[in-house]
Amino acid sequence: MDYLPLPGTHVEDIDTPAIVVDLDIAEANIKAMASFAAENGVSLRPHMKSGKSPFWALKQIEAGAIGVCAAKVGEAEILAEGGVREILVTNQIVSSTKIRRLFGVASQANVTVAVDNHDNVDDLSMGAQMFGIELGVILEIECGMNRAGVKPGEAAVALARAVENAPGLRFDGVMGYEGNAVYTQDFDLRKQQAMDSVNILVAAADDIEADGMEVKIISAGGTGTYDITGKVERVTELQCGSYLFMDSKYLEVFGDHPHPFRSALTVQGTVTSKPASGRTIADPGLKAISTDQGLPGVVSVEGAIVRSLSEEHCVMETQGPADELQPGDKISFLPTHSDTTINQHDYYYCVRNGMLETVVELAGRGRFM
Amino acid sequence: MDYLPLPGTHVEDIDTPAIVVDLDIAEANIKAMASFAAENGVSLRPHMKSGKSPFWALKQIEAGAIGVCAAKVGEAEILAEGGVREILVTNQIVSSTKIRRLFGVASQANVTVAVDNHDNVDDLSMGAQMFGIELGVILEIECGMNRAGVKPGEAAVALARAVENAPGLRFDGVMGYEGNAVYTQDFDLRKQQAMDSVNILVAAADDIEADGMEVKIISAGGTGTYDITGKVERVTELQCGSYLFMDSKYLEVFGDHPHPFRSALTVQGTVTSKPASGRTIADPGLKAISTDQGLPGVVSVEGAIVRSLSEEHCVMETQGPADELQPGDKISFLPTHSDTTINQHDYYYCVRNGMLETVVELAGRGRFM
Repeated sequence: MDYLPLPGTHVEDIDTPAIVVDLDIAEANIKAMASFAAENGVSLRPHMKSGKSPFWALKQIEAGAIGVCAAKVGEAEILAEGGVREILVTNQIVSSTKIRRLFGVASQANVTVAVDNHDNVDDLSMGAQMFGIELGVILEIECGMNRAGVKPGEAAVALARAVENAPGLRFDGVMGYEGNAVYTQDFDLRKQQAMDSVNILVAAADDIEADGMEVKIISAGGTGTYDITGKVERVTELQCGSYLFMDSKYLEVFGDHPHPFRSALTVQGTVTSKPASGRTIADPGLKAISTDQGLPGVVSVEGAIVRSLSEEHCVMETQGPADELQPGDKISFLPTHSDTTINQHDYYYCVRNGMLETVVELAGRGRFM
Repeated sequence: MDYLPLPGTHVEDIDTPAIVVDLDIAEANIKAMASFAAENGVSLRPHMKSGKSPFWALKQIEAGAIGVCAAKVGEAEILAEGGVREILVTNQIVSSTKIRRLFGVASQANVTVAVDNHDNVDDLSMGAQMFGIELGVILEIECGMNRAGVKPGEAAVALARAVENAPGLRFDGVMGYEGNAVYTQDFDLRKQQAMDSVNILVAAADDIEADGMEVKIISAGGTGTYDITGKVERVTELQCGSYLFMDSKYLEVFGDHPHPFRSALTVQGTVTSKPASGRTIADPGLKAISTDQGLPGVVSVEGAIVRSLSEEHCVMETQGPADELQPGDKISFLPTHSDTTINQHDYYYCVRNGMLETVVELAGRGRFM
């Protein structure tokens, strides 16, 4: 059982470490990406590996998204349970247990799943027949990230044909992820890298269509490449997710590049020790803020630089106003990577005008299985 | 609601990614540290920031530990609720909400808390009087880690005196953490670094005793320094925690140095894609295995090296038997840092002879508040 603060609680009275989301900013981010998509004639299917909650999925769908992406069955389950009716699972679902669970989701929502090999197509087809449910299937194309995905060209055409011929499966199209480009700082280089990947993806779709199949969906895009990939005419939908809270890593990548997004998510901490002038200790450690994209920034006070995180401590070099902080004082951190930070918490504390409006459960967190 | 596999399930049938603990090995590790402590006349108070569950705490107490350490109030709460009656909170508890909760725990268990400043002593004393509960207090001494802690010498003596004089507080002694030494590979250098820290801690205790106060507890030690710090006569108790599951980072640090511990914890994953010869993709990503101490190893098959982790993917370079792995095959990973890996999961799947014996809730996970 968790004891939660009541709506109306002042943000500074929320105990720490806590994920605090500014609802006005998050809603503005949602609106901004929806507007971009509408203006550029591309659909938006935001990735829920960031938000991990039906709350954010439904807000984005209400603002115009056609559905959402999920990274795994466990996420898809909580989204379907929460009322989301259009879900693209962007990874391969391969074990028999997970495939059965995928059909559990597919009985509640329109589900499309990514495949990259023939055995998986056979297993999904068998499941579709067993459950009597038509399952959408999209090919993941290896387009430069050197991760999963079927090779474009003949291999992709053959796999698409296998899906097309498989009882119970509906061939929906292709997807890729230009993940090798999303963190490139120089815009021209980022654009070139992204286009190299997207061109491979589009060519794979062309090959499949040349073989007589309809490619309804060409899905790609991360927050770092939304305004590159989203302007490619053949791309039908964008998968970006991080723009919802806008990671500081992406803000750094964008630099002077114009964009409408602001950071909506911070981690609130408490100063726990002031052992020496110039050194201040606070309570978010590695178990509250991820560091896989770098150390967090401090946003609520001038003059603090995070020097290291151990499990439950964050050591800051402090000067000026920050060096005046005393144990008990609240302090706000900006994580470089929201997704892996969020994944360590159970709740979002959503505030408006500095007051708690609602606590949102991170229902998809920990749903590995 | 979570759906959990039943006892008797074969380990390979547990869905992934999942934390799998080999109970025989974990119990042998528990016994080995308890024996070391008994043979060296030092008490053992294992840190629960690793185990995060009363299950492991009670097992260690049953094997001879005098109690456990907790990193925060949320952990102490679940330990007390689970029946642990002797808890040392190794950090400063400073906000009024957390102090009130600390007394909630202190009404169920004998609680000692670390302090490093006078205001905190005053606040704790006020709480102790308000709740009518005597609270144990231990000074955290800054002995080389440059984190929190009161400076040894006059400052420590004055703070000890303040505790001694504060109504409702019981001065228990001093603690330190030679965290700067625990990962040093060369044993002689590790010993020197550890002893430099421990000598500072012991000197601080000497100063306090010279001022007429009794120092009942001198607490220190991590798994990396257990057989150094644990042999110092003045040290009364060891705080080591990681030996329970034995991190591979510590195995690397120990190298040829003799010790009785083995890795009890692995992360079970599933191969999800085999896009090319030499490259194999599995499902534990950054959200299932932490990388703050380095990339995980692969232990269930020869010839696999983890090259990178993204959020839900792990990319392996594979050759030989590992390159034969196909989607759906199970594979076991050895995290470099158990604590931060565990913190992302909700359950331990505890196996004996390859069969699920019990599922243990990670009750302390996510208990920031």
